[in-house]
Amino acid sequence: MDEDDFLERTVMMHDFYGGKFTTSFKVPLDKENLQEYSSIWYTPGVAEPCRKIKKDERKVYDYTNKGNMVAVVSDGTRVLGLGDIGPKASYPVMEGKSLFFKYLGGVDAVPLPIAEQDEEKIVELVEKIEPGFGGINLEDIEKPKCFRVLDKLKEKLEIPVWHDDQQGTALVSLAGLFSALKLVDKNISEIKLVIGGAGAAGINNAKYAIKGGADPSNVRIVDSKGILSPDREDVKGTYKEKWAKKTNPQGERGNMKEALKGADACISATVPGPGTIKKEEVENMAEDAILFAEANPTPEISPEKAKEAGIRIIGTGRSDYSNQINNSIGFPGVFRGVLEVKATDITDKMCIAAAKAISERTEEIGLQDDFIIPGMDDKETYVKEAVAVGMQAIKEGVARKEYTRSELRGKVEEKINEPKKLMKTLRKNNLIKDSSIKDE
Amino acid sequence: MDEDDFLERTVMMHDFYGGKFTTSFKVPLDKENLQEYSSIWYTPGVAEPCRKIKKDERKVYDYTNKGNMVAVVSDGTRVLGLGDIGPKASYPVMEGKSLFFKYLGGVDAVPLPIAEQDEEKIVELVEKIEPGFGGINLEDIEKPKCFRVLDKLKEKLEIPVWHDDQQGTALVSLAGLFSALKLVDKNISEIKLVIGGAGAAGINNAKYAIKGGADPSNVRIVDSKGILSPDREDVKGTYKEKWAKKTNPQGERGNMKEALKGADACISATVPGPGTIKKEEVENMAEDAILFAEANPTPEISPEKAKEAGIRIIGTGRSDYSNQINNSIGFPGVFRGVLEVKATDITDKMCIAAAKAISERTEEIGLQDDFIIPGMDDKETYVKEAVAVGMQAIKEGVARKEYTRSELRGKVEEKINEPKKLMKTLRKNNLIKDSSIKDE
Repeated sequence: MDEDDFLERTVMMHDFYGGKFTTSFKVPLDKENLQEYSSIWYTPGVAEPCRKIKKDERKVYDYTNKGNMVAVVSDGTRVLGLGDIGPKASYPVMEGKSLFFKYLGGVDAVPLPIAEQDEEKIVELVEKIEPGFGGINLEDIEKPKCFRVLDKLKEKLEIPVWHDDQQGTALVSLAGLFSALKLVDKNISEIKLVIGGAGAAGINNAKYAIKGGADPSNVRIVDSKGILSPDREDVKGTYKEKWAKKTNPQGERGNMKEALKGADACISATVPGPGTIKKEEVENMAEDAILFAEANPTPEISPEKAKEAGIRIIGTGRSDYSNQINNSIGFPGVFRGVLEVKATDITDKMCIAAAKAISERTEEIGLQDDFIIPGMDDKETYVKEAVAVGMQAIKEGVARKEYTRSELRGKVEEKINEPKKLMKTLRKNNLIKDSSIKDE
Repeated sequence: MDEDDFLERTVMMHDFYGGKFTTSFKVPLDKENLQEYSSIWYTPGVAEPCRKIKKDERKVYDYTNKGNMVAVVSDGTRVLGLGDIGPKASYPVMEGKSLFFKYLGGVDAVPLPIAEQDEEKIVELVEKIEPGFGGINLEDIEKPKCFRVLDKLKEKLEIPVWHDDQQGTALVSLAGLFSALKLVDKNISEIKLVIGGAGAAGINNAKYAIKGGADPSNVRIVDSKGILSPDREDVKGTYKEKWAKKTNPQGERGNMKEALKGADACISATVPGPGTIKKEEVENMAEDAILFAEANPTPEISPEKAKEAGIRIIGTGRSDYSNQINNSIGFPGVFRGVLEVKATDITDKMCIAAAKAISERTEEIGLQDDFIIPGMDDKETYVKEAVAVGMQAIKEGVARKEYTRSELRGKVEEKINEPKKLMKTLRKNNLIKDSSIKDE
């Protein structure tokens, strides 16, 4: 199917279904006992659990679904590669996110596009909706606002906050890097690593690689003006300065080609290609080089061209190439773990634990140059990831509920299996319309 | 079961299920085609519907579920009879509301308790979340704030806004009054009507009775200090003044007993009884008197006492007496109609049309002194109500989508049938845990 046909088909499918998200029931009701059920689930009986929560607020996790609810909040300022398209136009993305939260992680996520783009006011708004949710997923908010919104909310809220374009992308990139390094038998603490892009994804790719073991002095972050350096006038006083100082205090200068010379790995999340990264820029990388070209919808350099230039392991954001660096491998498992233990935060260590779990699972299935990350169809990836995240939360003391590893695994498996069973049941009983996707 | 056992059982049930609300799917996914589906429902394909909405914002109703989404917003200041218990403790009520929105009306309602009690700021917050919803249901917000929040939001938003404690209660009361008047063969334009209480429910009971045909000069509103009168010092300058002037410009004074003398009907929504209204207060009402004692959880006067005093038709808020004046008969049908035609407002005339439809449906089933309102198990009530509301919206020009009556009926029936089928399917396939409610 060519690009235009695909896009037309996507619109047709959205039109046919009129949305991806709907609500459903956790409790029984039936016509014969409606009045009786109503007196329990609604008035007058519901007053009693309300009273008990008033006395002890923690009970809200026992008597309601709050603990499994995540708000997918976006101001619509940086939606996919489309830029500032506003909250309404961002709705299909937020609904898609909610869909995969549920299917892959058993998380009840609700799309919440908001008509507010001011940093302070976004923070305020999310604070005010906190009582209804067990976690917050920020989505498609422009930089540098997104950094500060995330930091402030993490500080202010008693529930975990996540920005998928920051932690999510970086976590999955790191998982891929761990796997690729196993294949080429290099140690993360010794590699020379180039980060392409200093946006939300880029900065967090650098941060997580370092938290995951990379030596900051071996990391170079390259933006459109070259290697980040503390003495660059355009870097001073911006969020980039901290990262320039951390990685390149000596003030090395250079362009992408120069930065990549001898590099073992490059994780790039910059401007969609083709040609953003050129063949001649990568051909002087080290032996067994690793390159993730994550720009969407078109990688900075095509995997074919990168291969020609001698790169050994190539990852992209695309599903039609192998090694997709796919956010959907991250957030559903992370949140499953986080919500299960009622964590108050998602720490960096929890994310690193998730990345390790993903890489270990890839190894179990069988690492190969063209298989460094599992597909979304591998349920066990999400289970392992959730357990790793939950156990790390318990270890760090940010969990409100403690389990043994095997108890947690049981809980997580049940919650991850359920939406698949739900989907099958709904389809079998014609509660989801049939599409002809497979026939086309 | 006695009261304490019932309350304990309610808490047990809430604890067992851990919430009433969950999310589900409108679109197919399966393990075998996950990647392909992901490219349509999420990246990269989802960008195309986003682009189209950016060009024409109305398309958001076609490509997403926004049009069927309702936020159940509460600041937790007047929850049931519990007062200001805050947003977390109000969560079980908001979830219960969402449950019945879905089961009875096929509406995707999301609980949204908020940590904000300032009038202006509640209005602002709801304005900001508007992009994600097709309608707003305000719930359990204290007076007089609730009046102004509703009025302001109705003016500011392009989606319909509803406060169930205002329009909802009044609509169902009016439906009951229409039915009762048919039984006693009196004309609404000629009756003497007493409204007990000048809170959110009371004021709206008066307003709707008048919009429904009652002569304002035959209506008396009685609060704890007696008949509302424009020259009462405590009435001047408050929201009550308008209603005192409208109903009692001549400044008649008196207590409940005096107001009720010779009255054909009384709708009271005041302080829980028993004994808030005494037998001797109602015994001088007119022949074939009608009395709705709506206070929860205990009516202002027990039906038994009211009967002894000679009242012919008695309604209460309780499900264990006949003639329950039950909000759940109203909001699911109203919103089904409103959302189906994508109305921009819920006008008073739409509510009056709903009340008439409910009363007509009661007549179809068979009016009796102890049957003036259908039960929640009568699906046809909601269908008729939704169609009446939708057709009235079209007539008034507040509908964004037009249908013939039979087209609309078809749409509405389908949406009202679906959640019942969903519930049955979920229960049959053990996707809802089994409770022993029927055995106890």
